[in-house]
Amino acid sequence: MQNPSDRATVKHVPERASYDRGTIDSILDEGLICHVAFETDTGPVAIPTIHARVGDVLYFHGSHASRMMRSTVGSDVCITVTIVDGIVAARSAFHHSLNYRSVMVFGRPRVVSDPDERTAAFAAITNHVLPGRWGEVRQPDEKEDKGTKLLAIVIDEASAKTRSGPPVDDEGDVDLGIWAGEIPLTMRAGVPIPVTGLEAGLELPDSVRRISSRS
Amino acid sequence: MQNPSDRATVKHVPERASYDRGTIDSILDEGLICHVAFETDTGPVAIPTIHARVGDVLYFHGSHASRMMRSTVGSDVCITVTIVDGIVAARSAFHHSLNYRSVMVFGRPRVVSDPDERTAAFAAITNHVLPGRWGEVRQPDEKEDKGTKLLAIVIDEASAKTRSGPPVDDEGDVDLGIWAGEIPLTMRAGVPIPVTGLEAGLELPDSVRRISSRS
Repeated sequence: MQNPSDRATVKHVPERASYDRGTIDSILDEGLICHVAFETDTGPVAIPTIHARVGDVLYFHGSHASRMMRSTVGSDVCITVTIVDGIVAARSAFHHSLNYRSVMVFGRPRVVSDPDERTAAFAAITNHVLPGRWGEVRQPDEKEDKGTKLLAIVIDEASAKTRSGPPVDDEGDVDLGIWAGEIPLTMRAGVPIPVTGLEAGLELPDSVRRISSRS
Repeated sequence: MQNPSDRATVKHVPERASYDRGTIDSILDEGLICHVAFETDTGPVAIPTIHARVGDVLYFHGSHASRMMRSTVGSDVCITVTIVDGIVAARSAFHHSLNYRSVMVFGRPRVVSDPDERTAAFAAITNHVLPGRWGEVRQPDEKEDKGTKLLAIVIDEASAKTRSGPPVDDEGDVDLGIWAGEIPLTMRAGVPIPVTGLEAGLELPDSVRRISSRS
């Protein structure tokens, strides 16, 4: 994105900003959830939901009855994805911080009705939560498809903001005898819990095995 | 909260909602960051930031220059804290989900100028990120205090929404021979990385030791 719009331009601490699509896409893909901010009669709201990216398009979905799905079609939204990477422990309280990577995408969502685009987006959303899962499960039938509203927003107005690395202390604090450094934080998958009554003899599927062995 | 306001009432899947202050507070306290949604001339924005709770008040802070800190004073905001607890893997794509706990707090932030309230809030914010850290570090001097804008919002219009437990599959899918279950997700602290040039002989402080040994 060579010329970010005004609202997509990071105003505060601009040296932490990036408009590089590779950076933006990698954060959108790794972040498990997003927060969708939209306006209502009683003020702004930010609701967590699952998203997925396919090329230049970000998708999110929900029931037709959901307020978020009704309020955001054709209206300005901000979709924010944030990954926390670590705690930044400085010698002074003031310089404490978090390491993070975040992306904000601005635009007006459209309803997706094309069957092929819907299938591709549903596959992407399922695989976003659990890579490879779409091919392992029963795919949506007509009733489920009809019951699901799918929204899309083009990623053409977006910015990333990140912090990484150690704390930056004031010179006068360096000799105070206070420990300073980073504490990395990672999301880890625990031991999978099969549903009660799972058919006997079923092995862990590849998708679940992969995510569990990453930890 | 006996009588939640209209905007604080969970409309969609209300059986996942709670207005219990104990539930709300525990999510606010455990969630490392929040997203602050506010309105701007070019539409809504959701920005991630660090928060902390002291009793009935939620605090967040930033530089006087930050757009978020300028735009939110006296204006309607929604502060959302979301903790992802696990992946819900069903036999059908449709019934995939995440287990999560989230809270939305609505209100109009006020600027905090009382010195004692400011100190208590700064301590809470530092300890929110790293419990016990405030007592280990150099506390804010006059310049740092002057440079920090502190906002407060009373937690009197809030709701929690949570999902937990196994996937709920359609009866017809139970015998498809597809594995189903939960994959728990947890945020884990890795090995602390001391800053380059840390004074020799400094041991890990209690705050860092505690968070690292929890993993």
